[in-house]
Amino acid sequence: MVTKVMQTTVNGLNEECGIFGIWGTTEAAEVTYYGLHALQHRGQEGAGIVANIDGRLRQERGLGLLADVFSKGDRLRDIMGATSAIGHVRYATSGSNSIENIQPLLAHFSDSQLALAHNGNLTNQVTLRRELEDQGAIFQSTSDSEILMHLIRRSQAPTFTDKVKEALNQLRGGFAFLLLTPDALYAALDPHGFRPFVIGQLPTGQYVAASESAALNVVGAKLIRNVQPGELIKIDNTGMQIDYYTDATDLHIDAMEYIYFARPDSDIYGVNVHTARKRMGANLAAEQPVAADIVVGVPNSSLSAASGFAEALHLPNEMGLVKNQYIARTFIEPTQERREHAVKMKLSAVSSVVKDKRVVLVDDSIVRGTTSMYIVRMLREAGAKEVHVRIASPAFKYPSFYGIDMQTTAELMAANYSLAEMTAKIEADSLAFLSVDGLVDAIGLQEQASGTGLTTAYFDGHYPSPIYDYAESMQAFEDAHLVDYMEEPTCKMHTLQPE
Amino acid sequence: MVTKVMQTTVNGLNEECGIFGIWGTTEAAEVTYYGLHALQHRGQEGAGIVANIDGRLRQERGLGLLADVFSKGDRLRDIMGATSAIGHVRYATSGSNSIENIQPLLAHFSDSQLALAHNGNLTNQVTLRRELEDQGAIFQSTSDSEILMHLIRRSQAPTFTDKVKEALNQLRGGFAFLLLTPDALYAALDPHGFRPFVIGQLPTGQYVAASESAALNVVGAKLIRNVQPGELIKIDNTGMQIDYYTDATDLHIDAMEYIYFARPDSDIYGVNVHTARKRMGANLAAEQPVAADIVVGVPNSSLSAASGFAEALHLPNEMGLVKNQYIARTFIEPTQERREHAVKMKLSAVSSVVKDKRVVLVDDSIVRGTTSMYIVRMLREAGAKEVHVRIASPAFKYPSFYGIDMQTTAELMAANYSLAEMTAKIEADSLAFLSVDGLVDAIGLQEQASGTGLTTAYFDGHYPSPIYDYAESMQAFEDAHLVDYMEEPTCKMHTLQPE
Amino acid sequence: MVTKVMQTTVNGLNEECGIFGIWGTTEAAEVTYYGLHALQHRGQEGAGIVANIDGRLRQERGLGLLADVFSKGDRLRDIMGATSAIGHVRYATSGSNSIENIQPLLAHFSDSQLALAHNGNLTNQVTLRRELEDQGAIFQSTSDSEILMHLIRRSQAPTFTDKVKEALNQLRGGFAFLLLTPDALYAALDPHGFRPFVIGQLPTGQYVAASESAALNVVGAKLIRNVQPGELIKIDNTGMQIDYYTDATDLHIDAMEYIYFARPDSDIYGVNVHTARKRMGANLAAEQPVAADIVVGVPNSSLSAASGFAEALHLPNEMGLVKNQYIARTFIEPTQERREHAVKMKLSAVSSVVKDKRVVLVDDSIVRGTTSMYIVRMLREAGAKEVHVRIASPAFKYPSFYGIDMQTTAELMAANYSLAEMTAKIEADSLAFLSVDGLVDAIGLQEQASGTGLTTAYFDGHYPSPIYDYAESMQAFEDAHLVDYMEEPTCKMHTLQPE
Amino acid sequence: MVTKVMQTTVNGLNEECGIFGIWGTTEAAEVTYYGLHALQHRGQEGAGIVANIDGRLRQERGLGLLADVFSKGDRLRDIMGATSAIGHVRYATSGSNSIENIQPLLAHFSDSQLALAHNGNLTNQVTLRRELEDQGAIFQSTSDSEILMHLIRRSQAPTFTDKVKEALNQLRGGFAFLLLTPDALYAALDPHGFRPFVIGQLPTGQYVAASESAALNVVGAKLIRNVQPGELIKIDNTGMQIDYYTDATDLHIDAMEYIYFARPDSDIYGVNVHTARKRMGANLAAEQPVAADIVVGVPNSSLSAASGFAEALHLPNEMGLVKNQYIARTFIEPTQERREHAVKMKLSAVSSVVKDKRVVLVDDSIVRGTTSMYIVRMLREAGAKEVHVRIASPAFKYPSFYGIDMQTTAELMAANYSLAEMTAKIEADSLAFLSVDGLVDAIGLQEQASGTGLTTAYFDGHYPSPIYDYAESMQAFEDAHLVDYMEEPTCKMHTLQPE
Repeated sequence: MVTKVMQTTVNGLNEECGIFGIWGTTEAAEVTYYGLHALQHRGQEGAGIVANIDGRLRQERGLGLLADVFSKGDRLRDIMGATSAIGHVRYATSGSNSIENIQPLLAHFSDSQLALAHNGNLTNQVTLRRELEDQGAIFQSTSDSEILMHLIRRSQAPTFTDKVKEALNQLRGGFAFLLLTPDALYAALDPHGFRPFVIGQLPTGQYVAASESAALNVVGAKLIRNVQPGELIKIDNTGMQIDYYTDATDLHIDAMEYIYFARPDSDIYGVNVHTARKRMGANLAAEQPVAADIVVGVPNSSLSAASGFAEALHLPNEMGLVKNQYIARTFIEPTQERREHAVKMKLSAVSSVVKDKRVVLVDDSIVRGTTSMYIVRMLREAGAKEVHVRIASPAFKYPSFYGIDMQTTAELMAANYSLAEMTAKIEADSLAFLSVDGLVDAIGLQEQASGTGLTTAYFDGHYPSPIYDYAESMQAFEDAHLVDYMEEPTCKMHTLQPE
Repeated sequence: MVTKVMQTTVNGLNEECGIFGIWGTTEAAEVTYYGLHALQHRGQEGAGIVANIDGRLRQERGLGLLADVFSKGDRLRDIMGATSAIGHVRYATSGSNSIENIQPLLAHFSDSQLALAHNGNLTNQVTLRRELEDQGAIFQSTSDSEILMHLIRRSQAPTFTDKVKEALNQLRGGFAFLLLTPDALYAALDPHGFRPFVIGQLPTGQYVAASESAALNVVGAKLIRNVQPGELIKIDNTGMQIDYYTDATDLHIDAMEYIYFARPDSDIYGVNVHTARKRMGANLAAEQPVAADIVVGVPNSSLSAASGFAEALHLPNEMGLVKNQYIARTFIEPTQERREHAVKMKLSAVSSVVKDKRVVLVDDSIVRGTTSMYIVRMLREAGAKEVHVRIASPAFKYPSFYGIDMQTTAELMAANYSLAEMTAKIEADSLAFLSVDGLVDAIGLQEQASGTGLTTAYFDGHYPSPIYDYAESMQAFEDAHLVDYMEEPTCKMHTLQPE
Repeated sequence: MVTKVMQTTVNGLNEECGIFGIWGTTEAAEVTYYGLHALQHRGQEGAGIVANIDGRLRQERGLGLLADVFSKGDRLRDIMGATSAIGHVRYATSGSNSIENIQPLLAHFSDSQLALAHNGNLTNQVTLRRELEDQGAIFQSTSDSEILMHLIRRSQAPTFTDKVKEALNQLRGGFAFLLLTPDALYAALDPHGFRPFVIGQLPTGQYVAASESAALNVVGAKLIRNVQPGELIKIDNTGMQIDYYTDATDLHIDAMEYIYFARPDSDIYGVNVHTARKRMGANLAAEQPVAADIVVGVPNSSLSAASGFAEALHLPNEMGLVKNQYIARTFIEPTQERREHAVKMKLSAVSSVVKDKRVVLVDDSIVRGTTSMYIVRMLREAGAKEVHVRIASPAFKYPSFYGIDMQTTAELMAANYSLAEMTAKIEADSLAFLSVDGLVDAIGLQEQASGTGLTTAYFDGHYPSPIYDYAESMQAFEDAHLVDYMEEPTCKMHTLQPE
Repeated sequence: MVTKVMQTTVNGLNEECGIFGIWGTTEAAEVTYYGLHALQHRGQEGAGIVANIDGRLRQERGLGLLADVFSKGDRLRDIMGATSAIGHVRYATSGSNSIENIQPLLAHFSDSQLALAHNGNLTNQVTLRRELEDQGAIFQSTSDSEILMHLIRRSQAPTFTDKVKEALNQLRGGFAFLLLTPDALYAALDPHGFRPFVIGQLPTGQYVAASESAALNVVGAKLIRNVQPGELIKIDNTGMQIDYYTDATDLHIDAMEYIYFARPDSDIYGVNVHTARKRMGANLAAEQPVAADIVVGVPNSSLSAASGFAEALHLPNEMGLVKNQYIARTFIEPTQERREHAVKMKLSAVSSVVKDKRVVLVDDSIVRGTTSMYIVRMLREAGAKEVHVRIASPAFKYPSFYGIDMQTTAELMAANYSLAEMTAKIEADSLAFLSVDGLVDAIGLQEQASGTGLTTAYFDGHYPSPIYDYAESMQAFEDAHLVDYMEEPTCKMHTLQPE
């Protein structure tokens, strides 16, 4: 049964995507293209835009990077002049990498059209899908995003807005949706505000919605609002109406957005991501200091944390690793040796910087540990005398049903090994993680009635709400992994939180 | 209202497609590819295959010719080893030329999958679609083929076969369907047998279904059965079961299949297409003889008719026109002059053959008349003394809701001009068409209870069954065009048959 | 040594190409594109155009069909507005299928540019190339066409025209060249007129040069002149000047142009190709009659001969084989079985035509015999009672250094087997070839001082001039093959002509 | 005359490329691919590899990024197993962006083959090309790299090595060449060592040559030698022989390699590039201090300098600008507004970092000044109170005939405006450049007999040797620009060095 769940829903588990929408300018297609470009880091496996051309929605989508998709066959030119548009960049595992799953989805009705772009993951998707299928619904993608379309369409509520509200109330999990009809643009966020979602405004007055505020800057829009948990915002020719579909809300934004997913130049709920990361580095330095000569961050994602770490300890923050700015593609079968090669194609150590130095290597996270091992080796080969690894987030020990792949979860280093074992595996002189408290403090969200305003389930297994269809998988995970923890409780509990 | 109908259904009007399926061999993907190649003449705008790989249906489809679609990215290799497959080649107007409409369609259910390939046109598609939408159905294509999937899925009948039967009984119009599930392959034909559809068998025993018998030859299968009107045939690991979903059947195959659509090497209901065309030419010669030196057929589609015409009048059948075997593409905006150019890139007159000769030009049909005019001119420029045009089919005067585009219908030369006007327009010395009786006789199908076994609605406006959603369009067409007929009644009726 | 020659020159042996040029219209690029399209049958492996844009020559070329090459990246649009252009379609074996060999070649000089398109084969290319290399010349292609560029450039003659003449006089073999500089267009033909080459004129006065007259028709030009052996024609803004670089000329056009290479609607030296083929069929019928019910030609190249054959014997000429008009591509490794498959994808037998009939199968030529065997089998499977194969050309027994690949030559069926053996190999009831005299008579060129005006070396080994660098290869071929002839001399000489 | 020179040689002026070669491993193609990937920053407009497959050199090349070129059609797979290879990544202006100019070039001779990859620019290319053309040489590219091939081929010296030496002695300018024959790999550097060029060795003993040492790291090779000015190194199955073709050498490596071109993790003549840049920043801080709150470097190229600047002044080095790691493509005509857009797609200001701060913006260079203006604006829009621009290199006032495009030179901001004007143009609160002395000190090369070991001609117009064919262009440049300097001499001289 568990297997079945995983088989049919595996795609939904990986959806860390970017969405963008705009209403009311004849440059809607171009603006959406530029906005998605700014969100490309949230998904590189597919991209699409649905745009309103003369009252009809038209869909353009393809596999691969945004610029590649839209450089083929004048696809952007075909939708130029559109007066509204929504777009999507998609992250997905290779298995589900088929064109049907690339968003925005578009449905045609005799009297209308409906397009949808989704960033998130529904934890009751299996249940909903089965119920819908039992009522005769046909799914043409394996993505959970299609479910909302069916729920809206089946709703008996009087107005379209009412239908959308009714449908949203049936969803569980984390989700940020953009809906486009020929008449309006809608933005909706889940009751826990699991994903970032912002509204901006162009100098000329038009409204823009985007996964991250960085996308607003690129198109020249000003951030005017974080979409709030439970909100349903409608934008049409009369302006913007802020409404809500539920008031049972409780902010629990995914801490991973601050740690890894979002761009450093984005602000989420008033907190700048770069600044938060710098504070994570500083807190990490305070919790896990180490005697060293230089601090080296893993480019690009860990540079903020490294600078905070270095400042806190008054150590020089040096460019000991350089990242090749061109995307590497290996054409050869991936073997262990080749994987090491792939890391080398992306990163190089700067010998003149690290030679004979005691290096603190600051990284934002560790998943399997393999990449860390290669980087540690690389630094040693370049002459580093010691390599102390400091991770600017707590150790990943639990699966997240909101953003990380189950299969990857099964290989999580920190769910299977003690800190000593991990240190040995990555061949470091020492290894330490930021505490959950240190993380929460670094992000510094205003405290919420029910908690920190953050979801930290990856680190502590505490989900802000029931996980529905994943409950069995979770149990299976715990059966498989928690035993290990139990066998070595002091190490695990001790070292990973305060140490 | 009429406009609305046309807007939402215009795609369905153009579906002259080819379908192919096979069950039970590990070469299912390759065999389907070869079979579709033999059906490429039935649709060049899109191609796809859904194949069963290890119990999961996988879809590969794209815009353009079959070989182009499957030469990209190893798409055929990805489905090799499949044990069953269905495929589709699609003809469509440019407007609907989007990937969503390329078949086979594939729907994913929690517990199964369903793929569908369709050749035909549903005359009650607008009504059905609205009913389905009212029940919450979501359509992701603008093709009418998607309707059957919804009807099957919504049926409350006990078994899958019963559901399919119930669904088929709700359809009107002409249709040949292939359905593929992980468990079986189904073939269904409409009650009038509007489109050709055959079952073959490989020497190794497996069953094959195809739009035309020519596709059987190519894959080495023997024709064992014409699918009969009203039949639902199921092929699975236990063999083939022939069943029917209605007994209110009445063969009325589209006469255009014999005239133009099908390959000359196909047999339809026991009649070879080449042989039927040759007899059309012979009957035309008997009805509309002309004093001439040579007969020239328009390659390739009219060569059979030309040979029948020449033999009947004991005239030499000469290669006065040569067709360039490579597909021409013009990269320049189509103007009147360019259209003439496009014809020149396809066809050339052989001066040494036609010089100083009285030429009978045999063509299979005339739609707008423009191409005929260019060919007549070309022959005259090459030195032909006289050019007498003989059309081996009756004049197209009525729209067909089973296979020809409404917009084209509006431009039908024979619906708008008298024979004398048409002769002048195409700049011929004379022009004559085959009579409907001559056509029926040439095809020579066994007489049916209710008629000739043929649909000749293009020529006489007689549809074998009500045309449902098109009734309004038909009325509009008649309002616009029949006046012309009325004004010149003797010409129309008189000239077009015996003259 | 022989091996060495073959290795470095193998590409040159396969050049059966098409060339086209125009001077003095701002539609030069488009006209060249259309002209090349009409010559596509002469080469499908590469295509290119060099066009004069604002006084600079610009090169566009690529692998594959013309339309595919120029549909990529707006390549035609980039050269629109050019005032002169030359183009090339290339036939080549896969080994030499690299972009460097695609023509027209283009050389850049400080003070000028020179482009070249070549149809032919130089028999002294190895010698010339070595001499040039010894003088420091650098070759960037493996094609022999590059040699002329070097010879022109190295000539010390006073004017460009003189340089070209001096260079042409050093070449041996068959060649038709188009040269383009920013100042003029040049057309040159070898002293034996081995390849067809014509000049046409547009209604607006501009001159056009093309490999075949069919290309003139397509662009609306009138044939005004066959380029004569030994001529060098210069076209520039002052008009056309007809000059010659040698008067040691002697027409020996390749008979294969009439038999197989050229389009039926082309006229070569006043003889229409279709008409010549029809006469080949008629002569074949007279020489090799057979009691049969129907005649079937192999489409499309043998349809003319089949019609001549049928007329001569008063037999019905039937469409017993149908050709798929779409290009087949097999994605699977070529095995014996697959090769049969490839034939089936191209050709189908029409059972209702051939069933229970004694069939005369008319083909234009036999190379290896394998395809013939598959077609004979196909006809028998479709029910033919007898299959008599009649080849409308003499048997290929000798290599041609002007147009057919050495390696293929080694497999020539007629060079290795007796007629009885060949008949058995292709599984025919009988087999016969046209005699050389019958061929010469059918083409009917005006007799020349030195012979028939034709090169028939493939059939009789008589070359119009020494074969230079190929002499060794020829000796090797004879050593390998002539023994077979000697062993069965009566058969060979006897059977192949009158039988 | 000047115009003529520019027209025919404009391509040569832009060649800042990357080259890589290896001898003696069956992974030669893969290693070259990885090596070129590490050099991709040196050229993104074309890439190619020539590899030795079974004794024959085979060429694969195309327009665009390396990974795009080699992902098409299995091009890398086609050369796998090669035992030696050279590769090239090319930087070029769009005008010369044709496939013929993509390297490595490959010439075919009857008895051998020669491939060539070149990084540099020949200052006597016009003269050499004309001389060669006068001797009959044909050029198929417009690149100056082809010249060496001709010189080698024409040399009458006894051995291939002697020919190469003789040819190299005729070249002037800056050049690093890799030559590959079936028998050996050669590396040659110009007498001034204008471009970086290194030799490495794999753990398994094979030798590798590359433009930068960073490429050695990626393939796992150790740097064993900087190729010295005037050297000709031969690598074959017997090992490596270090030879020289001239002893009139004098190191003058291009200072721009340290400032901008090379990767920070490369070492050139023993100086690490990152470290040199950091010292440039430190020297700049010492020369041009400014009262400010934070230092912000322009990512990625100026991050090293910014860190040096910040450290020297004890200011926080902050991430005030973020670079989008995905390559932006704009599909819309470039207008002034769009150019600003392109900068926004690449860079974003981090408001929470720069808000209300006095910012020192550190950049590595200014060419036209437009980008600087957009960045200054961006920082102000993000809330920066003051923006002081500090350029970590001297002002570009002179054309360089070794690496920067003449046309760009004509637009050099510093050649046309005073410092005050420049400051106003870029809308900065202040602007200052590093002095030439500060640059030389920061790089810190060992002093050479004749100077600093560096070429600083961009800044001071002092070329290490005559500039031959460019002398006229240089004079024209001075005539056009130096007047401006003369009119405002105090400003220019004064402000730009110490200020």
